[in-house]
Amino acid sequence: MTAPPAARYRLAAVPHDRVTIAGGFWGPRQEANRATTIPTIHRRLREAGHLDALRLAWRPGDPNPPHVFWESDLAKWIEAASYSLATAPDPALDATLDGVIDLLAGAQRPDGYLNAHFTVVEPEGRWTNLRDKHELYCAGHLIEAAVAHHAATGKGALLDIARRYADYIAQVFGPGPGQRRGYCGHQELELALVRLHGATGEDRYLRLARFFLDERGRQPHYFDLEARARGEDPRDFAHGTYEYNQSHRPVREQDTAVGHAVRLMYQLCAMADLAHETGDAALLAACERLYPSVVERRMYVTGGLGSSAHNEGFTADYDLPNETAYAETCAAIGLFLWQSRMLRFAGDGRYADVMERSLYNGILSGLALDGAHFSYKNPLAVPRDADKAGERYPTLRQPWFACACCPPNIARLLASLGGYAYGEGADTNDLYVHLYIQGSARLRAGDQTVTLRQETAYPWEGRVELTVEPERPATFALYLRIPGWCRGARLAVNGEERPLAVEHGYARVERAWAAGDRLTLDLPLPVERVRAHPAVAADRGRVALRRGPVVYCLEEADNPLPETAEAGGMRLDALALPRDAELTATFEPDLLDGVVTLAGQALRRDGGNGAPQAFKAVPFYAWGNRARGEMQVWLREAP
Amino acid sequence: MTAPPAARYRLAAVPHDRVTIAGGFWGPRQEANRATTIPTIHRRLREAGHLDALRLAWRPGDPNPPHVFWESDLAKWIEAASYSLATAPDPALDATLDGVIDLLAGAQRPDGYLNAHFTVVEPEGRWTNLRDKHELYCAGHLIEAAVAHHAATGKGALLDIARRYADYIAQVFGPGPGQRRGYCGHQELELALVRLHGATGEDRYLRLARFFLDERGRQPHYFDLEARARGEDPRDFAHGTYEYNQSHRPVREQDTAVGHAVRLMYQLCAMADLAHETGDAALLAACERLYPSVVERRMYVTGGLGSSAHNEGFTADYDLPNETAYAETCAAIGLFLWQSRMLRFAGDGRYADVMERSLYNGILSGLALDGAHFSYKNPLAVPRDADKAGERYPTLRQPWFACACCPPNIARLLASLGGYAYGEGADTNDLYVHLYIQGSARLRAGDQTVTLRQETAYPWEGRVELTVEPERPATFALYLRIPGWCRGARLAVNGEERPLAVEHGYARVERAWAAGDRLTLDLPLPVERVRAHPAVAADRGRVALRRGPVVYCLEEADNPLPETAEAGGMRLDALALPRDAELTATFEPDLLDGVVTLAGQALRRDGGNGAPQAFKAVPFYAWGNRARGEMQVWLREAP
Repeated sequence: MTAPPAARYRLAAVPHDRVTIAGGFWGPRQEANRATTIPTIHRRLREAGHLDALRLAWRPGDPNPPHVFWESDLAKWIEAASYSLATAPDPALDATLDGVIDLLAGAQRPDGYLNAHFTVVEPEGRWTNLRDKHELYCAGHLIEAAVAHHAATGKGALLDIARRYADYIAQVFGPGPGQRRGYCGHQELELALVRLHGATGEDRYLRLARFFLDERGRQPHYFDLEARARGEDPRDFAHGTYEYNQSHRPVREQDTAVGHAVRLMYQLCAMADLAHETGDAALLAACERLYPSVVERRMYVTGGLGSSAHNEGFTADYDLPNETAYAETCAAIGLFLWQSRMLRFAGDGRYADVMERSLYNGILSGLALDGAHFSYKNPLAVPRDADKAGERYPTLRQPWFACACCPPNIARLLASLGGYAYGEGADTNDLYVHLYIQGSARLRAGDQTVTLRQETAYPWEGRVELTVEPERPATFALYLRIPGWCRGARLAVNGEERPLAVEHGYARVERAWAAGDRLTLDLPLPVERVRAHPAVAADRGRVALRRGPVVYCLEEADNPLPETAEAGGMRLDALALPRDAELTATFEPDLLDGVVTLAGQALRRDGGNGAPQAFKAVPFYAWGNRARGEMQVWLREAP
Repeated sequence: MTAPPAARYRLAAVPHDRVTIAGGFWGPRQEANRATTIPTIHRRLREAGHLDALRLAWRPGDPNPPHVFWESDLAKWIEAASYSLATAPDPALDATLDGVIDLLAGAQRPDGYLNAHFTVVEPEGRWTNLRDKHELYCAGHLIEAAVAHHAATGKGALLDIARRYADYIAQVFGPGPGQRRGYCGHQELELALVRLHGATGEDRYLRLARFFLDERGRQPHYFDLEARARGEDPRDFAHGTYEYNQSHRPVREQDTAVGHAVRLMYQLCAMADLAHETGDAALLAACERLYPSVVERRMYVTGGLGSSAHNEGFTADYDLPNETAYAETCAAIGLFLWQSRMLRFAGDGRYADVMERSLYNGILSGLALDGAHFSYKNPLAVPRDADKAGERYPTLRQPWFACACCPPNIARLLASLGGYAYGEGADTNDLYVHLYIQGSARLRAGDQTVTLRQETAYPWEGRVELTVEPERPATFALYLRIPGWCRGARLAVNGEERPLAVEHGYARVERAWAAGDRLTLDLPLPVERVRAHPAVAADRGRVALRRGPVVYCLEEADNPLPETAEAGGMRLDALALPRDAELTATFEPDLLDGVVTLAGQALRRDGGNGAPQAFKAVPFYAWGNRARGEMQVWLREAP
């Protein structure tokens, strides 16, 4: 299968193990991910029973039956741990992984099937409810884990398990006689199969991925047929509409972001990957058609997706309530993953802008600073009594969840983050810097390796020092991303300022490079007032503060208000920000592991007298790490 | 224009002045509407400046400029007052109306135009922003008022004003050379023009209504063109998407309830009326296509419509949050009006069921028991602190609103309610009773008048005594509605029980009727537990109580909970209703102007000990008439 250029990635991905993250903003976070988050998740999985479940010893009447999606939680942890191993050797973790993989090997059935729930709890139920039961979704995560583990360790045990499972799935599912023409209610396997093709070179995995994508939404509807086969009325589907899992129409015909946000993001990743692998321009066109629906009309300023808990997903254009935002951590991660693919097609920085928006806000807010507490939902306003508010308000950060998809998802992203920071021209010697992250990368330009080093305190400071170290002098173009929010960026090469020509969000610097060449990029980071599209009723008369990619919020911890404040629903609404208020940015090394805070004078609206009151804003991602209290991103603006 | 039967009303409407409402549930309410609500609204309109505005004396720099939609508020009040006059002569009100109509006559421009704002505030702006400015919407309400006033009083002054205005509009708008191919952002004129056709017999008003309906959503989009003509970028539309005003696609192609709920309801009324008048089956088919989207997937148990404040309207299937429900009073009224038309096409009681659902719940909740306070939004759960919650929670009942559409809307519905209670076969002598309302009606059967009298305490009691009084004995069929929620209805004719054959929601009784024939209908009214479709996440694990058409709620006033209750977000959530709890219904004459309350034993969930606690539920429509506190429709159900 070779693709015409139109639907091919212009930029190759750079494997994360060619990228080192050290110091700066992300070094300590990646280290905490390795030292705290990954071990914590392993412990939680063990405590919850995910590992024991694989011994297949559960019997009816026993407590804690294996849940149908446990393998996916475990697989994402394996994937995270593998990525981490690839850049930070850790013999103990390596051995732990081997032990978990032994358990998986023991749980795999002779035919290749692997799902503890459907082996010991409902053995008669295998493949009978693809709509709800996540079997193929779990298979997808196992495959992703296997590809990651194989790449990290060179060991084949898990990849063998995954291939056997995938080959079995390829027998069961397909258009042939006696095969099931089904697909999973939760997209994931589709993108995993493309990755398995990449790891094995086997085209049949691509064909199976395309089969699953193209069956989706066909009539007669598979989920109708299988519901009737179970003796159920398809109309009793708990989520009411097949928009929920984006099977309401064929994926190539979809043009609006509907349903469960994570599912749509994973679907779009698979569509992009498959468009690249097969040159299928219609799949790419559908991705491009969905972009404005997702990014321009149904995304929060934080990169969060999902306006309602009812479907963990999308509602209507510009319906972006703040307190009741769902904005699942996994959805922001899915958006990041999808946009990284769109970036590789187009080489256009607007996609990297969305990646940064989700990364520094809606994703990172899912993890407490201690690396051991997580949030599933990431609302943009939280009332003071949210800690005892049960279902009325989104859950705050917790040690664990019954549905534990988000913690290992953020762990695998942090462990592999380096893989999203750079790009290499697929058919050129162009090198791209997408994300400013201190560390280094070994990139391919022509027949040699070019080492790029970044020194930067980004996102707190806008200066990025880059050192270019080709093995031998060579001419190639370096593309440095100039974020969409940035005005007045400046660039110097070896200390000499260069005029900056920005195209599609990148400054292009082509020259004969020699080892030790230095680039100095200065990205001004003024505090910006962001206003929502006027159709977003929840944000009318409000303003959000952003500095660089970081969105800010007010917390009660920094902004105490007396009980008498006429605060409206949110007591923080007692403060209104004048349009001309001077806003200062200060790095506070001892606050919240070191953050730039914003400060200024707001007006207190108590009784309408508008007395000035100093306020302080902290990064949204860092909210909720101190005393409980209100939090708010969209602040009232004084008229 | 004559219509094929498929798209013709099978049932003729019975003018409300042939129906008398007396005593029972609705008599005192209609009387309070006449004695309190209509005068109160008149006073508020005068205070707000709606009347003075018509003197056209406002000059730049003066306070309180006439608002663009003031004529619509005033017109709805005229319509309400006219309906009231038609059944309750009131010389003072008659004279007041004449005075207001004089003001309108004085404000009408020589060309027929009538809008104070665009006469004195923005004279250059006439017809330049149909998308946002409500001019044609106001014209529609003026026409409806004129038709009502003419019918009530026989006076032609306002009808002349309306015809001159409509004739002027017909010159300005149309497909001809030099005409504007526009239509209003807020549907209303379309249905009004069909009414004007009915009052005048002039087909040109039908043609204009059809023009407006069929232009809607055409490309190139009129709202794009007029925005560019104003020098604006159409993409700056404050509501972001033309779904907001249902001009995203032609009305005949619409299949999903989107955007502003009131606008869609008025559009659907016009489509139904025009389908009838012109036999246009495609318009009726579009109405039928939208029915399940509105009623089965996007409607609250109260008949409320609109899940989000962002567009005052629809979001996604099954997205029905309770605290943040918009559920505008006007939208429930619009639903009632649309369903009354669908009922006339089909003679099917399911439409009358929806009418009753909205009438006894989502509409009536818009009016305080004092007849002088109103709610715009009608959420299904209100937290205790909602009175100081500003924009976070929907507004509670207030004396008036800056946007005063709802108060006169409920007044005109109450004043004309009798017009929806009965039907006459369009081509038969069939007589229909749709709504059980104590009073009498003069119906046409063949060449004579049949007086039907109802005595009933419905909805508190299920017995309805009907007396049939034809002028002379005659054989015809009487159709008595058996509500969809009713099981075990019984019917006796002159004291003798008759087997009940219910078809399409009606029991048919055909016989030779003589004056004084009596029917006794018994509709059992057990307390019912209603559960939402499982896709409605907000209501999972919850139950609503309903008795007959009346939906109930818990109020803190009846169900005190100590501060220590572990109540979750809503403190009333400390109570959980066991599935087998016995529920008793008691009429309490001194409570809330006399209501049936429901009582039983709930379980207190404090600390999980589940101690029993008595609870009491009151009708949802009556909430918020006592001390402030929490209110909740969907109650937790004990597992």
